Amino acid sequence: MLLVVTPNPALDVTYTVPALRPHTTHRVGTVAAQAGGKGVNTARVLTALGHRALCVLPLGGPTGTAVAADLTAAGLPYRAVPVTGDTRRTVAVADGDDATLFNEPGPRISPAELRRLAAEVAAALPAAGVLVLSGSLPPGAPGDGYRELVALARDHGVPTVLDADGPALTAALTAGPTAVKPNAAELLAATGRTDVPAAAAELHRRGAGAVVASLGPEGLYALTGEGAWRCAPPEAVAGNPTGAGDAVVAALAVGLLSGTPWPAVLAEAVALSAATVLAPRAGHFDRAAHLRLRETTTATAVPA
Amino acid sequence: MLLVVTPNPALDVTYTVPALRPHTTHRVGTVAAQAGGKGVNTARVLTALGHRALCVLPLGGPTGTAVAADLTAAGLPYRAVPVTGDTRRTVAVADGDDATLFNEPGPRISPAELRRLAAEVAAALPAAGVLVLSGSLPPGAPGDGYRELVALARDHGVPTVLDADGPALTAALTAGPTAVKPNAAELLAATGRTDVPAAAAELHRRGAGAVVASLGPEGLYALTGEGAWRCAPPEAVAGNPTGAGDAVVAALAVGLLSGTPWPAVLAEAVALSAATVLAPRAGHFDRAAHLRLRETTTATAVPA
Repeated sequence: MLLVVTPNPALDVTYTVPALRPHTTHRVGTVAAQAGGKGVNTARVLTALGHRALCVLPLGGPTGTAVAADLTAAGLPYRAVPVTGDTRRTVAVADGDDATLFNEPGPRISPAELRRLAAEVAAALPAAGVLVLSGSLPPGAPGDGYRELVALARDHGVPTVLDADGPALTAALTAGPTAVKPNAAELLAATGRTDVPAAAAELHRRGAGAVVASLGPEGLYALTGEGAWRCAPPEAVAGNPTGAGDAVVAALAVGLLSGTPWPAVLAEAVALSAATVLAPRAGHFDRAAHLRLRETTTATAVPA
Repeated sequence: MLLVVTPNPALDVTYTVPALRPHTTHRVGTVAAQAGGKGVNTARVLTALGHRALCVLPLGGPTGTAVAADLTAAGLPYRAVPVTGDTRRTVAVADGDDATLFNEPGPRISPAELRRLAAEVAAALPAAGVLVLSGSLPPGAPGDGYRELVALARDHGVPTVLDADGPALTAALTAGPTAVKPNAAELLAATGRTDVPAAAAELHRRGAGAVVASLGPEGLYALTGEGAWRCAPPEAVAGNPTGAGDAVVAALAVGLLSGTPWPAVLAEAVALSAATVLAPRAGHFDRAAHLRLRETTTATAVPA
């Protein structure tokens, strides 16, 4: 079982409009909503791949109820920690092929609620093959909120994939996450450096076992204890990039679970991520494209 | 008592961002929410002016619960017709002095729910001095949904102010609303004409007692059975134009209630509307500006 923690989940709402015109009024054509947050997207991909993924997440208020209902409808097992605040929403305004996103900060989480979240993770860890920690920490959580969970997994001998940025990422490094997956902008911001390999080397030195940086259409750069690789999709894909990084995290988690060598893990991550871009909603992917792209995607070793 | 019907109310959510950049991701700084829909904004203004306004509106789902809670907190009396669908939201993205609006269509309303809404209006009409009908009709409502309510008010000898556009406006004209308040674009679209006085004359011929067209910063054009007037604010005002039209409706309703002559009603409408632009939220107005502007705003008679 893959254990996926989303400390700041959301109801992801999509508004479809013909065109976004700043400072005008838009009549929204269709309103769609699904459970979201990076971890939930990753769990959705893992489940679609046939893996058993268990979500642990705080949920509260009417929006939390809507998230729980969608998780159930989607067949995604979860353990919710009840919280006082109303779970947040994100709004994506989709016009044509692109989207404009508005992410609410989320409700404040109390220390007691955070302790209950950690206790749920601790209770589930003995049955977990991998722990995925994904997305922003909620308001009220200490900046090093992920460090304790990484350390907890380490105590259980469970590898971790961490997808976070800023202090949530850097403060967790000393606990030694097995892999971290920042995007290029997050990686550079976390280190103050200006090139991806140097920034990845710094995170590796500070404790990350592997640093896998997502580079948008250019694929991935990975620095691991076994070497460094670049891996780009074999063809350009156009579509909805939301959730592409969450598909990379899913592939990394599956790779750690199965002990697959890094070049194959990275190729699968790029293929799955590109197939996600081809699907209209985060957490979903184009199965035919996934099968096709995984045959033609290869990682190339580069000097570390 | 002024009776205010909002057939498609909303929870108006405001996201504050430093700047709206299409096709990027925004971390929302603050999230504010208040009960909305044009009629609710008008009722808020009427209440702030010291009048007793009763809202009648359908409410459903968790968002309907949030709207009801805000109405109660704001001291706005209401009678809610319970409906199955979840009340809609609108999202205003505020950046600096301007806002970009996204209006959800709203839940479908069943014929039985519509009958209950009309029954609530009928029950409240005997105690009403004016009936205000405001905003879009919900999905599922017939296009002539306002006509029956205008006719009902006429039967009770209660004057009506109708603020709607498209078929919701034009189909109600044959019932003879006392005043209609389209904005210039709505007025031209409803008639297919290209100038405001000719379009107003057409709506007047088709049954509207008075046609008061809001012209944005240029104020109002009004065509009534007693003549035609233009009325502009005496000074330019900058701020949040959302709700400015709802303040005009509030002033028209008070004018009909008190039997004030049209030139004074129009001057008050322009002053109140401009004072609303100066307040950051719809349904609120700058009291000092209102008192100052009403002293210096005058309506000018023009050829009908």
